Order: sequence, then structure tokens, then C-alpha cells
Amino acid sequence: MGRPRTAAALIIGNELLTGKIQDRNIPVLARELFGLGIELRRVVICSDEVPVIVTDLDSLRSTHDLVFTSGGVGPTHDDVTMRAVAAAFDTTLERREALASLLREYFGNGLTEEHLRMADVPVGASLVSAEAVRWPTVRMDNVFVLPGLPEVFERKMPLLREHLGQDTPFVSRAVDTASDEGAIALLLEDLEKSFPGVRIGSYPRWGDGPVRVTVTFDGLDGREVEGAAAAFTAGLPSDQVVGVGDPATAEEETS
Amino acid sequence: MGRPRTAAALIIGNELLTGKIQDRNIPVLARELFGLGIELRRVVICSDEVPVIVTDLDSLRSTHDLVFTSGGVGPTHDDVTMRAVAAAFDTTLERREALASLLREYFGNGLTEEHLRMADVPVGASLVSAEAVRWPTVRMDNVFVLPGLPEVFERKMPLLREHLGQDTPFVSRAVDTASDEGAIALLLEDLEKSFPGVRIGSYPRWGDGPVRVTVTFDGLDGREVEGAAAAFTAGLPSDQVVGVGDPATAEEETS
Repeated sequence: MGRPRTAAALIIGNELLTGKIQDRNIPVLARELFGLGIELRRVVICSDEVPVIVTDLDSLRSTHDLVFTSGGVGPTHDDVTMRAVAAAFDTTLERREALASLLREYFGNGLTEEHLRMADVPVGASLVSAEAVRWPTVRMDNVFVLPGLPEVFERKMPLLREHLGQDTPFVSRAVDTASDEGAIALLLEDLEKSFPGVRIGSYPRWGDGPVRVTVTFDGLDGREVEGAAAAFTAGLPSDQVVGVGDPATAEEETS
Repeated sequence: MGRPRTAAALIIGNELLTGKIQDRNIPVLARELFGLGIELRRVVICSDEVPVIVTDLDSLRSTHDLVFTSGGVGPTHDDVTMRAVAAAFDTTLERREALASLLREYFGNGLTEEHLRMADVPVGASLVSAEAVRWPTVRMDNVFVLPGLPEVFERKMPLLREHLGQDTPFVSRAVDTASDEGAIALLLEDLEKSFPGVRIGSYPRWGDGPVRVTVTFDGLDGREVEGAAAAFTAGLPSDQVVGVGDPATAEEETS
């Protein structure tokens, strides 16, 4: 198993920085990449300003294998992502007939010149298609340009899966315990040393429920992950183990 | 009205980057700062690694008036924020008796040596208190260290409000329209030129509801904001205006 591919996300939109809208794309992308064995190392949320986006893109794409942007791809004045991607690659936009014809078909008589802006992509970009996803995704070198609307963003995930391919997927286990963090901190430190290939996370819960902390174990080697989780439950008084499962369970419970 | 104070947030936690947990703190902080007239310009989500956090803190605190961190302040091995803040300021941690005694009181007989780690703060940090919030918040220069647990994070907002004080608050108006983005793009471009002090955002909705786009108008000058929103509704065919209000409404509808 080599080093996992690394990724960063650039989430573009003043609406997130002013609290008008809560992001829903980050967890979707994060889970997708985790399942593909790609390590999402950083997320940046920035404003709808070309120079800001260019600086962030330059920094993120030179330090990560893959970069995913979200937002700013519509036809209005605040949709500047394509322009910024082009600028980051020292190029300009050009209209792609394949996209223009999809727009003409979709909008019919309602089509305006401004709609057609959505057919403008950086010179040199490739259009990534998948059977299940009609509108192609723009890829420029290692940068994938994704939409901001959560319902559309989510539909792009099968395309990423198909296009990126799966490395060794990460494996994850979660143990729910009635102990609190102060009582398990030393045990977790020991486990961290004994299982250097496993990332151990400790997440306290709020409220008076039976679960006070969820401890998660992530790694590329399933046996090591299982071993670390088993060593943790073995190290707890048995009445302190509330549940053992995969982290999907933990996530539902905490959300 | 001078330049608004600027802010950045550093959200620390592998659980967000692996999609185990969805962030709920960013919108809370964003709305709070917006109401105080402080401009949140950037959010970074990073992993629980001291060198990563130090690099991010250095970059964010030198380019923004205020920085807020969230996460990594518990007693376990993955809670490294305080250590990173100390390192970013070239200092070390010291135990504060005021915090240790709060911990002793709270945990009673259950107190462990590991719990007491939560009383360790960077040398030179100040403890910011407010009447309504028992546990003080650690402030190091322009960096405020906030907890990751959403229920606790939210409780810190009155403290920030009291401590930071309010500048000229941002004002915001939202107009819901049945038009789609392609049909209003030119109108919005004109308004952007006519109202340079107003930030105009255009947010399409998913699905078949009567509202196809919510357009928001933000600014420090209430009259300008109202003027821009009024000019927008005046520029639309009257049957295309579905609603006019403050963006709290828009947010509920889109979430």
C-alpha cells in the first residue's frame, strides 16, 4: 500500500461566510473520498472574488494530488469560479459547443445569452462524463470544478468515483463508551503508540445519553483497525462499552 | 463607517475531513460575526496535527484582525489545539489554577490527571469571561480558542458579543423570485454597478417550488441595501416577485 492520494476542497461562496446557508457538500465529498481511499487533508471556504480564488487554487493544487471546487458556476455576476480557474492556469475561457447545446436543449425558448456563459470553460479543460450524469464536469489538470447546489453536487459523486478510481479504501470502526474522555485518555495514548497505522479520534457527546464518547479507528489495513478497536474495548471495563460498529452509526447518532 | 474588522475561522478536526461529522459551528459563528459587523473572510478546516495548525494559525492571524479556532480542546491525544496555539506564539503551556479549580469542582471524584490538561493554556493567554458563560475562553493576542462541540460552541457566542463589541452591523435583505438566474443576470450586473457598497448574491433553489432564485443584498448602509433590493424588485415583472424579507427566511427555506 503506497501513500494515499491527497485532496483539498475549495468551497466558494459569500453565502457560507455570512451564515445565510449551511454547507452540505463538505461531508458528502469527505465521505466519498474516504471510501475511495483518498485523503481529504484540507477544506477552505472563500469568498466569490477572483483574486482570492486564484491564490487559494494555486496554493491547494500545488500541495495536493487533487482539488475539488464547489460553487460559483452559474450565470450571474457572483459566479466567477470558471474565470478564476482559467486565471490560475494562465489561460482564458472559451465556449464549448457540447455544453452550449445541452443548455439550448434544457432551456429551450427561455434560453438567454447569460445562460450560455455556463458553456464557457478554461482553454485546455477536459469535460469528464459518466453515463449516469448528463452534465459533464470540468476538469483542469488536477482541479475538478463542481457545482454549489447540494442536490446537484451529490449527483456528481458517481462521476468522481468512476473517473478517479478506488485506491485501497480506508476502513473505520467506532466504539461508543459510557466512560468520559478523561478516563480513557491514557488508554488511547497507549493504543496510538501500539497501532501507528491507525488514526484514533475521540468525540465526546453532549447531553445525558448513555454514550459519553465515541472513539473512532481509521486506517488502510483492516486487521490493524479491528485490532486497535478490539484492544480499546478490551481495555475498558465491560460495562463501559455501549456499542461497536461502523462510523455511519456514530454519525447518525451525533447529527 | 471605517473598514469592517476582518475575521477567519480555523476548524480543527479529522472527523470533519473524513465525513464522520458535519460541521455546525461555521454558520453559528458566521451569523454572529455578520450581526456584529465583522467580516468573516475565510474558513479553513484542517487536521488534528500541530505543525498543520501552527502554519494555518500563522497565516490566518497575520492577515485577519481576528481568528477563531474550533475543536481540539479536550483531554485526549487528538486534542492538540492549545499546544499548537502556544507553538504558533513561540511559547509553551502553563497550568492555570482558575481553570483547574473549575475542573475539580465539575468532575469531583471522577477527576483524572488527564482532565487537568484542560487547564493548560499558552503562557501569556488571557481568560475571557462573561457572566452567562461559566468556563472562560482562552484568548491569545487576536486568536480566540473555542470548543468543537456545537452545543458548547453556541454558548460561547454571547461571550464573543460582549467581548468584541458591535461595529456597524451588516444589513441584509432577500428577494425571492420565480425568474431563473439566466433571466436576471443582466439586471443584477447593473445593480452591482449602481450600488457598489452592496454585495449582491444570487442563489438558485432546487426543485419545482415557486421560488427559483433568492437574491440577497448585504451592506453596512441600510438605505443603500434597501435601495438595491427595491431596484431589483422594480426591475422584475411583478408576477416574478415571490417574497421580500430578511435572509433568515431564505435560510430556513433552503436548508
